[in-house]
Amino acid sequence: MTDSTYVTFPGRLVIVGFGSIGQGVLPLILRHVDMPRDRITIITAEERGKEVAEDLGVTFRLEPVTEDNHRALLEPLLGEGDFLLNLSVDVSSVALMRLCREVGALYLDTVVEPWGGAYTDTSLTPSQRSNYALRESALDLRREPDNDGAPTAVVCHGANPGLVNHFVKQALLDMAAETGAAEATAPADREGWARLAKALGIKVIHIAERDTQVANQPKAVGEFVNTWSIEGFVGEGCQPAELGWGSHENGIPLDGRRHEFGSDAAIYLMRPGASTRVRTWTPLEGPFHGFLITHNESISLADYLTLRDGAGFLDYRPTVHYAYHPCDDAVLSVHELAGKNWRMQGTQRLLMDEIVSGIDELGVLLCGNDKGVYWYGSRLSIDQARDLAPYNNATSLQVTVAALAGMVWALENPRAGVVEPEDMDYARILDLCRPYLGDVVGAWGDWTPLQDRERLFPEDVNTDDPWQFSNVRVS
Amino acid sequence: MTDSTYVTFPGRLVIVGFGSIGQGVLPLILRHVDMPRDRITIITAEERGKEVAEDLGVTFRLEPVTEDNHRALLEPLLGEGDFLLNLSVDVSSVALMRLCREVGALYLDTVVEPWGGAYTDTSLTPSQRSNYALRESALDLRREPDNDGAPTAVVCHGANPGLVNHFVKQALLDMAAETGAAEATAPADREGWARLAKALGIKVIHIAERDTQVANQPKAVGEFVNTWSIEGFVGEGCQPAELGWGSHENGIPLDGRRHEFGSDAAIYLMRPGASTRVRTWTPLEGPFHGFLITHNESISLADYLTLRDGAGFLDYRPTVHYAYHPCDDAVLSVHELAGKNWRMQGTQRLLMDEIVSGIDELGVLLCGNDKGVYWYGSRLSIDQARDLAPYNNATSLQVTVAALAGMVWALENPRAGVVEPEDMDYARILDLCRPYLGDVVGAWGDWTPLQDRERLFPEDVNTDDPWQFSNVRVS
Ligand SMILES: NC(=O)c1ccc[n+]([C@@H]2O[C@H](COP(=O)([O-])OP(=O)(O)OC[C@H]3O[C@@H](n4cnc5c(N)ncnc54)[C@H](O)[C@@H]3O)[C@@H](O)[C@H]2O)c1
Ligand SMILES: NC(=O)c1ccc[n+]([C@@H]2O[C@H](COP(=O)([O-])OP(=O)(O)OC[C@H]3O[C@@H](n4cnc5c(N)ncnc54)[C@H](O)[C@@H]3O)[C@@H](O)[C@H]2O)c1
Repeated sequence: MTDSTYVTFPGRLVIVGFGSIGQGVLPLILRHVDMPRDRITIITAEERGKEVAEDLGVTFRLEPVTEDNHRALLEPLLGEGDFLLNLSVDVSSVALMRLCREVGALYLDTVVEPWGGAYTDTSLTPSQRSNYALRESALDLRREPDNDGAPTAVVCHGANPGLVNHFVKQALLDMAAETGAAEATAPADREGWARLAKALGIKVIHIAERDTQVANQPKAVGEFVNTWSIEGFVGEGCQPAELGWGSHENGIPLDGRRHEFGSDAAIYLMRPGASTRVRTWTPLEGPFHGFLITHNESISLADYLTLRDGAGFLDYRPTVHYAYHPCDDAVLSVHELAGKNWRMQGTQRLLMDEIVSGIDELGVLLCGNDKGVYWYGSRLSIDQARDLAPYNNATSLQVTVAALAGMVWALENPRAGVVEPEDMDYARILDLCRPYLGDVVGAWGDWTPLQDRERLFPEDVNTDDPWQFSNVRVS
Repeated sequence: MTDSTYVTFPGRLVIVGFGSIGQGVLPLILRHVDMPRDRITIITAEERGKEVAEDLGVTFRLEPVTEDNHRALLEPLLGEGDFLLNLSVDVSSVALMRLCREVGALYLDTVVEPWGGAYTDTSLTPSQRSNYALRESALDLRREPDNDGAPTAVVCHGANPGLVNHFVKQALLDMAAETGAAEATAPADREGWARLAKALGIKVIHIAERDTQVANQPKAVGEFVNTWSIEGFVGEGCQPAELGWGSHENGIPLDGRRHEFGSDAAIYLMRPGASTRVRTWTPLEGPFHGFLITHNESISLADYLTLRDGAGFLDYRPTVHYAYHPCDDAVLSVHELAGKNWRMQGTQRLLMDEIVSGIDELGVLLCGNDKGVYWYGSRLSIDQARDLAPYNNATSLQVTVAALAGMVWALENPRAGVVEPEDMDYARILDLCRPYLGDVVGAWGDWTPLQDRERLFPEDVNTDDPWQFSNVRVS
């Protein structure tokens, strides 16, 4: 670890939301961004984190941001060249992005969030409750004419989405170098990356994560326990399962639906992601079942890696989705939540100091190449995380360092308009993040979702193509 | 609790297997069965429990019972009027029952177990690996002409199967009394009980169990943790899911199969029970998801409560199955096991002394009556269990006291041949068990598997009849 200054920032910084990510990123900002701490203001909705803000000498304001008050509240705090870091739940990213553009402030978010309640608002259709729709609402801002030269607004730049989008590029280059199948230098443009993925035979990309962090205080009945935002996780877990939909897939699942607008890069399933299990693999854990939780990167990566022919017909796209094994207590919490038909537990506990051991093994698994599957990612233990930064666990540090790196990149590139992680310089971001990611490794494996299947019972497997989603999904 | 002698036993007692149930039942036997402890011999396959046997002053022999050696090993230890208590895994119940019948010894088992490996022996069909087939193999012995007046051999007399079979009878009488729908006195015969169940409108019976026992040492990666036999649980969890199949069911599931022999009271699914979730309810936990693990009582109760018309056509039968929420660590262990395609974890931990809190809420849920669902069962906390008996947790004590009661009943009824719990005197057994069951309660509820459904997404529910299995099953 180094304490070097990454960037000097003369403006004001507003941090909206001060939960696990806000509290975790602030010490990193103070360490690596050269700015006076009295120019930072935290605006949040609960007392949580107040002592941390006080310890760090940063103004803490308890004032929930709402659709009605957000302009009055934030406009006085933000002007030309200032920065808004949105690390809240329940606050519309697009509303804050629009405000920032108007006043000339930079912006960074780790997701695209709607106003509170939208994830489970059944007056909206499942398509409208999807991350696909949220992403399109952010892209709409990019499609507006004044996006050119507008203040930079980075969306979805945490660990995933965020860091993992860059991991995919590094993994593609590693695979090119190690197989000799394609040139191992970074393509110049989006189409070049898509052509590289196609040349390497990539049919499927999993964001394959296994969080093994455990605490010594067992989960209580009626308690939701997780290593990061419980509201955030339950929100996305109750959204429809979503996945970037590959060109090799034989047909969409019975409960799969296409959207009637936008990029068409992804489909959704008519069920919560938190009830949808998929087979995946990481080098340390081996094969395991993860949850197919909807995530922005599933859609943006699939869209980014799409090739179309001259007539606009789909030529190539990988299937992309999250395969998330949260910490064990969260697996139990999801099981309990499902049993209560998605009515949230009465109490919640975000694991931080009581964690006794474990790592967050977070990476991308690229599947379809003849040499095997290739996983690239970060293995960060709770002990490493504690050595590296205060107020973090292994999960949050992977997010907070990526948020920090995104902020630095935005300050270095202040007039880029709306950007997704794919639009940024993956190498710069990885360089900024690497000191905080524990072991960053690439590893080949011979895993497929057909491995060890049908041991006890016949199953409906497609042996012609292991990489069909029907093989990956657990039924 | 009382230390009174339940029965005096002049014979020899052989206990095969000395794991959580063997160790837990021995102090109860020594407390309530008047016999010299030097007439007891333990035969088991591991060192486990050796110190407990020494503490209790009982002979401990480490000699695994096999198909080849069981006669040579056990014949010298068993003669007319002696007793064999089979509390092992991997030892064929029917082989030991046959031996006991030949030498004139009494017998009790808490399951019907095959020789080792059969649960996952894929040279057997799923039908042959089922509890249905195992039950028929025990009933075959009952169908032999010498069963009349043969030494009593009680099968499946633990908590479930065992105790819960008696709970069903008590629940039916309670419901009759509280609804006035039928006479509230115990019917004289099997058909009377079936008629009572039909009169009360019972369509579905769940063995609804929620084990909330937790330890302060978190489950490790690659470790299977449970409150009772891990081998036993994984064995049954890998068998096909099985359920007594009610006459009200519209049609069997796509993955459901009928057997081609025997009572036809049950079907099986072409998948492991440990991967099959069902909706159920207990008074303390409320609604939850349990695993549809195959159990003998699902079949025997459905068979027992069957009515046929004069021509032999099916008139009435409830759907009966287990809906098991094991302790949280076991839920995680099953999740991990499924992720490894049912390859057993490398290490195992049976929770006993490290349990810090929790209860086993174990009962039967009778569904279909107009007044609502009725749950009848035992709520036993770990603290209560520890006060009541040494070497037990809440889960094992519900089993061990039932095994003790079954043993007492067999000694009181020594010439009954092969008996299932339904053939025994439910009131006598409940009287013997009650001091060890914590709070024994009956409670009505308004739960149905349609409650709270379709909150977030449309689902394929049958609103005409809430009690269709398709509504209960989680997909
Ligand atoms: N991309 C990633 O890798 C990644 C990872 C983790 C979290 N996240 C996202 O980051 C965000 C924060 O996560 P977290 O773990 O810190 O969440 P958290 O639940 O710990 O904290 C959320 C914070 O938002 C605040 N908040 C809630 N409503 C607000 C309102 N109306 N106005 C202002 N503040 C409000 C809360 O008071 C709290 O301080 C979430 O949106 C989450 O989805 C992204
Ligand atoms: N009906 C019920 O409610 C109920 C509940 C719990 C357990 N059970 C059954 O009771 C039995 C014992 O359960 P447990 O929790 O004590 O199991 P356990 O795994 O703790 O112990 C099993 C014992 O069997 C012994 N054993 C294994 N192979 C043997 C062999 N070849 N010969 C002799 N002994 C052998 C082991 O050494 C061990 O002592 C299992 O069959 C289980 O399914 C029934």
